[in-house]
Amino acid sequence: MKKTHRIDPDPAASSALPSQGRRRLVEAAALLAAGGAMRPTGVAQAAEQDSALVPAWMKHQGASILSPAYGQPSPYEAHVIRAAIPGRPTSTAATSQTPLADQRGMITPNGLVFERHHGGVPAIAPEQHRLLVHGLVRRPLVFRMDELMRFPSVSRIHFLECSGNGFGEWDAPAETVQGTHGLLSCCEWTGVALSTLLDEVGANPQAKWILAEGADAAAMTRSIPIEKALDDAILAYGQNGEMLRPEQGYPLRLLLPGFEGNMSVKWLRRLKLGEAPFMTREETSKYTDLMPDGTARQFSFVMEAKSVIVRPSGGHRLRGTGFHEIFGFAWSGRGKISRVDVSIDGGRSWQMARLQEPLLPKCLTPFRLPWRWDGAPALLQSRAVDETGYVQPTRSRLIEVRGTHSVYHYNAIQTWQVTHTGEVSNAHI
Amino acid sequence: MKKTHRIDPDPAASSALPSQGRRRLVEAAALLAAGGAMRPTGVAQAAEQDSALVPAWMKHQGASILSPAYGQPSPYEAHVIRAAIPGRPTSTAATSQTPLADQRGMITPNGLVFERHHGGVPAIAPEQHRLLVHGLVRRPLVFRMDELMRFPSVSRIHFLECSGNGFGEWDAPAETVQGTHGLLSCCEWTGVALSTLLDEVGANPQAKWILAEGADAAAMTRSIPIEKALDDAILAYGQNGEMLRPEQGYPLRLLLPGFEGNMSVKWLRRLKLGEAPFMTREETSKYTDLMPDGTARQFSFVMEAKSVIVRPSGGHRLRGTGFHEIFGFAWSGRGKISRVDVSIDGGRSWQMARLQEPLLPKCLTPFRLPWRWDGAPALLQSRAVDETGYVQPTRSRLIEVRGTHSVYHYNAIQTWQVTHTGEVSNAHI
Repeated sequence: MKKTHRIDPDPAASSALPSQGRRRLVEAAALLAAGGAMRPTGVAQAAEQDSALVPAWMKHQGASILSPAYGQPSPYEAHVIRAAIPGRPTSTAATSQTPLADQRGMITPNGLVFERHHGGVPAIAPEQHRLLVHGLVRRPLVFRMDELMRFPSVSRIHFLECSGNGFGEWDAPAETVQGTHGLLSCCEWTGVALSTLLDEVGANPQAKWILAEGADAAAMTRSIPIEKALDDAILAYGQNGEMLRPEQGYPLRLLLPGFEGNMSVKWLRRLKLGEAPFMTREETSKYTDLMPDGTARQFSFVMEAKSVIVRPSGGHRLRGTGFHEIFGFAWSGRGKISRVDVSIDGGRSWQMARLQEPLLPKCLTPFRLPWRWDGAPALLQSRAVDETGYVQPTRSRLIEVRGTHSVYHYNAIQTWQVTHTGEVSNAHI
Repeated sequence: MKKTHRIDPDPAASSALPSQGRRRLVEAAALLAAGGAMRPTGVAQAAEQDSALVPAWMKHQGASILSPAYGQPSPYEAHVIRAAIPGRPTSTAATSQTPLADQRGMITPNGLVFERHHGGVPAIAPEQHRLLVHGLVRRPLVFRMDELMRFPSVSRIHFLECSGNGFGEWDAPAETVQGTHGLLSCCEWTGVALSTLLDEVGANPQAKWILAEGADAAAMTRSIPIEKALDDAILAYGQNGEMLRPEQGYPLRLLLPGFEGNMSVKWLRRLKLGEAPFMTREETSKYTDLMPDGTARQFSFVMEAKSVIVRPSGGHRLRGTGFHEIFGFAWSGRGKISRVDVSIDGGRSWQMARLQEPLLPKCLTPFRLPWRWDGAPALLQSRAVDETGYVQPTRSRLIEVRGTHSVYHYNAIQTWQVTHTGEVSNAHI
C-alpha cells in the first residue's frame, strides 16, 4: 500500500464518468478493494487510514471561522466574476455582466449580479436617504429609510434583465454567454409593495403615471404606468436576504418585475404622480427601439420570453463524447415559463426540457436536458414558451419584424455551435 | 428656499410613518408644496432642481463598476456579520452564527451562512478532491469533481440547521436571536441527487446505511439511512447560484434536507454502504440527546418544526408606539409549514400570520403579522405547525419530556419580552 498522502492529480487516476461516457479505472477500484479504505471504519480508523486516497489536508487542523466574518468565495473560484464589456474604458465603465455559465440554480449571488449605471454608483448613508412622494397625491410626504422599513414587507424572487441584454447580437455576436446574455440576474427582493405606499400618500384618481427618479448623478428617471405600480411593484431594500448592494441601489430601489431593468430605478429618491408619461430622456432619446420603417417603439416595458443554454455555451469545450447535461435559463416578463424546448440540430427537431420547480412568475427558470453527444457537430438551441402562449422567436423572425437598428429587446433563440472537437461557439443562423 | 445640498439628518426632518403610528411633519410637506420639488420635472429639471432635498451625491459622477468584480455589501452594513459564540476562544473557534435579525426574505446570503466545523476549514483545490464510493456496491468508484459535475443536476431551496441551534436555551438564554437561533440558514443548493450516484455504483440490496466522511482534520463521519439517501439527499457543489464556500464544504458536501446539520457532511470524500449504522463518535458520544431518565436518544435526525420572531427580537428597541411588522421564520424537517400563529400576550391568544409564498418543503418560511403596539408590555411568541400536524411545543412541555440535559434539538416556542419603554429581551416563561 502506498504511503504517500498526496492525491495524484493525474487524470489517469480518475475512475468514473456518468453512465454513457464512463471510463472506469479498474486499477483504482482494485487498489481500493485491496487497501485500507475498505475496512469497517469510524472516526478513529478513518484518521489512521493510510491509503493513497487520504489527502494532505486531513493531517492538520484547518482554518478557524473566518475573519472578517462576512464570508467570501473560494480562491479557486476567483475566475467567476462580473466582467466589463470588452473594449470599453473601465474608469467610467457603467456595465458589467453576470457569469451565467457558472451560475448553479436560479439565484444569482449578490456579488455577481450585473451592473448598469447611468451616472456611476453614489455612496449613500442610509440615514441620510429620503424618498419624496408627491404630485397627484392627497399628502406629499418624505420618508426616511427607517420609516419605510416599518411598513408591511413583501419578498419575491424575480429576474432582472437590462433591456440591452444581447445588444451586440443584432449584428456583432459576443463570444460567451456572459457577453450574449449576462445583463441578466435573479434575486429574492424584499421591500414595501408600492401599492402600500400609494395608499399611504393617497393617490388621486386622475394619477395615471408615476415618475421615478434616482439619487445618482444622472438623476435617472422613468415613467411607470400606475397599473404596474398597483400590481407587483416593490420599493426594494433587501436582496437575497441582506440589504441591497451599493451598485444595486442601496439603500432603496424600485423593482418592477418583468419590466426592462432600467425602469427599476436605483437609489430611488422621488416618486411623482401625474396624468401622463413624463417624457424623460430615458424614454425619448434612449430606451426606444428603432424599427425598419424609421419609426421608434416607445414604452416597450415588458421583457418578452427568452431562454439560453449556459452549459455548454460559447468558449466551452466538451470533454469527450457521452453524457452531458444541457443546462440553461428561461424567463418571461409576462409570467411563468410553461415550456422550454431544446434542439441539438439547429431547430429541426426539439425535445422538452425539465423545468426546475417551483415555477415562479417573472423568475429565472432553470431547465435541464440529458444529452448524449456522439462526437458529431451540433447546433444547440433553446426555445421558451410562457404561460401567455408567447413563443421565443427565431433570430430571422425577430429581425424580419424589428430589423437590426434596435439596441434593445433582443430575445431571439440563441444557437451554440459544437464542432467535432467539442469546441462551442456563438453561431448566428 | 434653502440652498444647502446636505440633507438634515435630524429626526425632526422625518415626515412619515406607517398609518397607525404616523407623525406627519406638516412643515416638511408644506416646504415641498411651496418649493421646487413640486414643479413638473424631467431629467433636465430634476438635475437643476435646487431644493433642500437634492443630496450632495447627485452633484458628481459616482463610482465606476466595481473592482474586484466580485461585489461586496455596503460599508454601512458592516455590522451585519456572522458572530462567534461569546466567551469562546476565536483562534480555534468552530461556530459562527447567522445574523437572523437582519435577514430579509428566505435566502441567507452565502457570506452570512452559519459555520460549524469539527476540525477547521480545509483548503481544497477542487481538481485534487476525490469522492470514494465503496462498501456494499457492485463497483467501488472514485470520482473527480469534473466527473461529478457532468451528472444530471438538481437545485432545491432548503434550510440547514445545526442540531445544537438554541443549545444555550435549555438553561442559559442568549440575548439576541443571532445567539438563540443563529445556527440556521437557508440556501438554494445544487448538485447531484445521491440516488443518481447510487444508481451509478450499483447499491447492493442489503445496503441499509451509508457512512459519509468529510476530508477535514476531524474526518467527520455520520451514518445515513439508505431511505434518506434515496429520497432527497444531494451531493451539493452549488450554493445560492455559485460554488460552495470553503466553510460550507467546498468543493463538495452532502446535503440532507431537514436532517440535523452535522449529517450534511462537508468536504465529502467518502461514502461507504453497509448493513448497519457505523457507530461513529458523532453518533455515540456526540449528537445524542440525554433524557431525564439517563438514557440517550440516538439517531435523532429530523429537525422538528420550529419558528422564531426575528423582528423585533432580543436587543431591539421599538421606536415608538403604533404600527410594527412582526417578522419571523418557521421551518420543519418533515416538510412544509402549514401555519404559524403569533401571540403578543405570552400565548394566551393567537393570531394567524401570513406565510411567504411559495411554500417549500424543508425550507425557511418567512411569516409576517401587522401589529399595533399600544405601549404596554408584551410577550411575543410564534408557534409553527407543519404539514404532518406537528405543533411546536412550549418550553415547559419540551422540558417536561426531554429534561434539560440535552444539548441538541431545542425547538421550543421563543418568547421575546417587550417593556413599556420598547426594550426587547429574551424571556424564559
